Amino acid sequence: MASDSDGDTIFNLNEVDGLQVTQDKQAVLGGAVLGLAQDIDRLFAHWAQQFGAEERQFSPLVSAAQLNKLEYFKSFPHQVMFPVSLLPDDDNLNAFADDPISSDDALRLTETSPVHQCLAPAACFPVYMSMSGQDLPGTCFVTLRSTCFRKEESLTPLERQTAFTMREVVCVGAQGDVQEYLEQFKQIVVGFFERLSLPVVLERATDPFFNAPTNRKYIMQKVAPLKHEMVYDGHLAIGSINFHQSSFGETFDISCQGSEVFSGCVAFGIERWLFAFLGHFGTDTDSWPGFEDLVAG
Amino acid sequence: MASDSDGDTIFNLNEVDGLQVTQDKQAVLGGAVLGLAQDIDRLFAHWAQQFGAEERQFSPLVSAAQLNKLEYFKSFPHQVMFPVSLLPDDDNLNAFADDPISSDDALRLTETSPVHQCLAPAACFPVYMSMSGQDLPGTCFVTLRSTCFRKEESLTPLERQTAFTMREVVCVGAQGDVQEYLEQFKQIVVGFFERLSLPVVLERATDPFFNAPTNRKYIMQKVAPLKHEMVYDGHLAIGSINFHQSSFGETFDISCQGSEVFSGCVAFGIERWLFAFLGHFGTDTDSWPGFEDLVAG
Repeated sequence: MASDSDGDTIFNLNEVDGLQVTQDKQAVLGGAVLGLAQDIDRLFAHWAQQFGAEERQFSPLVSAAQLNKLEYFKSFPHQVMFPVSLLPDDDNLNAFADDPISSDDALRLTETSPVHQCLAPAACFPVYMSMSGQDLPGTCFVTLRSTCFRKEESLTPLERQTAFTMREVVCVGAQGDVQEYLEQFKQIVVGFFERLSLPVVLERATDPFFNAPTNRKYIMQKVAPLKHEMVYDGHLAIGSINFHQSSFGETFDISCQGSEVFSGCVAFGIERWLFAFLGHFGTDTDSWPGFEDLVAG
Repeated sequence: MASDSDGDTIFNLNEVDGLQVTQDKQAVLGGAVLGLAQDIDRLFAHWAQQFGAEERQFSPLVSAAQLNKLEYFKSFPHQVMFPVSLLPDDDNLNAFADDPISSDDALRLTETSPVHQCLAPAACFPVYMSMSGQDLPGTCFVTLRSTCFRKEESLTPLERQTAFTMREVVCVGAQGDVQEYLEQFKQIVVGFFERLSLPVVLERATDPFFNAPTNRKYIMQKVAPLKHEMVYDGHLAIGSINFHQSSFGETFDISCQGSEVFSGCVAFGIERWLFAFLGHFGTDTDSWPGFEDLVAG
């Protein structure tokens, strides 16, 4: 069962065509619900196209050294996840292979190899990293879709998953261009939510920083309107609009026509959009909007 | 530079439109090469459709308990990767946040949380797992595309990556149906390689088992023709055709119309197909086949 902000059941996951939930609370998409997820992503790609965004595809593994430059480990040590393997020593591998798992299904990992990468916690970091040291010829727009990974205290299929799918549309360039881009995208999504009567509102927000009160970046988010979330039904952030000022540009030594570079991104959590659509339109596939309905207007 | 089986350079990665290689040897796809990757995947989906395969989308996290039922940890402890997070205790997180990374860019992980999942080492395992305990109404076909993760001793962009993209087409059902399916798919891919004059041949193969000589599954693969690889230029497996006999059915208690269930899968490594196409057709985008050329005939 899925519930709204008052704890009321709004739809039954078992009644959604093509949706299956595994024993470890992961959502498997097929049939109609996979089609809806694809339509939703095509909607994002359609919006990205309006800005001439170039599609790119990155690995879900992100350099730890690069992420450290963003002070990511100081800010989100409770959420970051690492791709770990065993030390490739025969005795070590045999010790694991002989007794890999405990009675409560936790793995008994033996000695692990040095770790140099993280599982992508958000889609857009590799975009800025890929521009390291570059002087951009002009403001540029990139869109990408990635599997992202975050440790969560509790899991709910579609709403809160360890692994989830994020579509982002990123703008890097002159300050005015980035701010205008974010403003235009705000109008696009607000207009969309109004047209479909989806109960989603934009709210100022902060990221869930570790040791928030002493984190410089948290304080910046509190002071300036840097982050807005698209909040469904008063409780679930299905997307966000973020202005990074010049922080990524400075960290990765990016410039634009020789000048300081700014950046912003619009991020969508695809499984959470599915949740919002199912909550609002119900589980009857006949009442779901088609792709043409999504991009109309 | 990419090289062939004789060590000769066959194309320069830097000359491929839209291909970027990160400092940690990961391939970023954009522009023309992303279009080619998408066309190649559409070709696989086109083949899958000929068998009426249903598209599904699974999480890249796979239950360790389920994977253990396949004796996976005994067979591939050197390749399996785990999504690891830090124990969510303030002192533990602060200790990591204060000094997260060493001078050689290896993370200094503090105490980690119990691990119950693995990063998917292949796309198709979750398909069988999702059918656990079921009696199928008939032979069924599923296709899916997943990011997969394997620890490798050395990395080469496109050819050998820790994270890569696998498209699979899976058949689960009656023995005769599965065997006929694999035979038909063999003819499809062999016909394709011939038509495009791609230097790819089907070869009997075994998986890279740990402690191979004593592994029952390795011995089965050696004795019976269970696995064929699509080998490009004599050295790179870009896909495989696999007959699992009744092993997945037995492990996960699946039946088909009350009878023993068999399974087989055809797997394609999308980055490796890109490598083969670039090696064969070169880096001039004008000489690349279009989607209509791929599905013709």
